[in-house]
Amino acid sequence: MDPDRLCVVLVSTRNPLNIGAAARAMCNFGFHRLRLVHPYDPAFREARSAVGASSVLADAKVFATVAEAVADCTLVVGTTAIGHRQPQHPVKLLKDGAASILQALNPPSSHHSRVAILFGSEKVGLSNEDLSHCHWLMHIPTGDQQKSMNLGQAVAVCLYELARDTATPFPAAETPRASAEEVERLTAVLLETLHASEYIAAHSVESKEENIRRLLRRMRLSTEDASTWLGILRQVLWKLRSKS
Amino acid sequence: MDPDRLCVVLVSTRNPLNIGAAARAMCNFGFHRLRLVHPYDPAFREARSAVGASSVLADAKVFATVAEAVADCTLVVGTTAIGHRQPQHPVKLLKDGAASILQALNPPSSHHSRVAILFGSEKVGLSNEDLSHCHWLMHIPTGDQQKSMNLGQAVAVCLYELARDTATPFPAAETPRASAEEVERLTAVLLETLHASEYIAAHSVESKEENIRRLLRRMRLSTEDASTWLGILRQVLWKLRSKS
Repeated sequence: MDPDRLCVVLVSTRNPLNIGAAARAMCNFGFHRLRLVHPYDPAFREARSAVGASSVLADAKVFATVAEAVADCTLVVGTTAIGHRQPQHPVKLLKDGAASILQALNPPSSHHSRVAILFGSEKVGLSNEDLSHCHWLMHIPTGDQQKSMNLGQAVAVCLYELARDTATPFPAAETPRASAEEVERLTAVLLETLHASEYIAAHSVESKEENIRRLLRRMRLSTEDASTWLGILRQVLWKLRSKS
Repeated sequence: MDPDRLCVVLVSTRNPLNIGAAARAMCNFGFHRLRLVHPYDPAFREARSAVGASSVLADAKVFATVAEAVADCTLVVGTTAIGHRQPQHPVKLLKDGAASILQALNPPSSHHSRVAILFGSEKVGLSNEDLSHCHWLMHIPTGDQQKSMNLGQAVAVCLYELARDTATPFPAAETPRASAEEVERLTAVLLETLHASEYIAAHSVESKEENIRRLLRRMRLSTEDASTWLGILRQVLWKLRSKS
C-alpha cells in the first residue's frame, strides 16, 4: 500500500480541533495528505489537537469545492455513520470498503491513481451534492443508541482499518516453561512446607501429594517463575523450622 | 458477545472532554459500563463532548484505585500505543487482543465474568503500577512518525475492533443490469446520433459499429441508466434532425 496516494478530505469542518485531531490520526497510521474544502475557521493550522502532526496541518491544501479537492483522484469514497434510508449509492461496511481502497492503493494498480476519502461536517455530514462526487459510500457500523460519531474519532477508525493488517504481530516473549524436573523440585519443597506449617494435618484430603502435584502443573510456570517460587518456599520453610 | 460485561476503565484522565469522547465512542459501538480511576476534573459528567452519551457519563463509577475498579473482572487488559521496549507482559496487536476479549465475553464463558480494558492518562499512559494489574497488553499498531494516540480516538478504535465483525453488511442495492436487448436498442440510437451529428464522418475508425457496441457494453449499465441514456439520445437526435 502506498499511503502517499490516499487523500483525507474534510468537507466544511466547523471545529478546527477536529481538523487537528484528524491530522494526528493520519500521523498515527502513516498518512499525510490532508485536503480541506472550505473549512469554517481559517486558523485551523494552529489547532492544538494536532499533537505530533504539525507538518500534516502545514501541508494541508484548501479547496473551494469538492470537485477541485478530488480532481486528481480515480476513486472517491464518502463516509457515513448514519447510513442512508434511500441510498443513492452502494454502501459498504468499513472493513469491506477499506479492502477495496487498499486494492486501489496497491502497486499493481496505476501508480498515479489517488483515492479520496470524504468526511462531512460535524452537524450534518456530507450533503447530497458532496455525495454525488463519490463512487460509493463507506459505513462505520455504529449502533442504534448513538449512530453519529465524532469527526476525529471517525477518521481514526477509518485509517486504523486501512492500516490494520499491515502491522506485524509482537514476537511472543521468550519465557520458556519450567521443565518437569524443576516443577517436581518445587513440588517437593511445597510439600515440605505444608508439613512444616501443619497445613497437611489440618486439610487431609486437599493436601494429598497428587493433588498438590496437579495444582502446581496447572500453573504452567515459566523457568523464571518456578525459580522465584522455589526461593520463596525455601525461605518460608527455613523460617518455619527456625521457629520450632 | 454481551456488551454489558465489558468495562472501559480510564485511569487518571486529565481532560474531561476526553472522558466525554470516550463515552460517545462507547455509545457508538454499544457499550455502556464506564469506570474512572481518580479523574483529574470532578466535573467530568458535564463534558460537552459526550454527544448522545449523557447516560453513560451519569452512570460512570469513580474509584480511588485500579484494584477497586477491576475487582469484579476476570480479565484485565492494558492498552498501549507506544509499545514497551522491555515488555513485562505479553503484548497482542489490537485485532488479536480483541479476538481474545470477545472469546471471554461470549456466552460459553461464565455469565458473571467481566472484562476490563484500561486506558492511561493523556500524557504518560498507564504506569507500571497500573500495568501490574493487567493480564496482558493490547497495542494499537501506530506508526513511527507519531505513536501516541489521542485518548478518545484510542477508545474509539479499540471498541470499533470489538464491534467490527458483528455488523451485518448492507444488502446490495437492487439495480438489475440492462438486458442485451436494452443495450442493443441504445446502441442503435447512439449510432443514429453519431450519423446525424456527423461524428461518424469525422472519426472513421473509432466509430466502427463494433467499437461502439463494445463501448456501451463496458459501461455495465443498469436497466434504469440504460433507459435514461436512451431518453437523452432520442432527445438529442430529435433536436439534431429538427435543425437540419
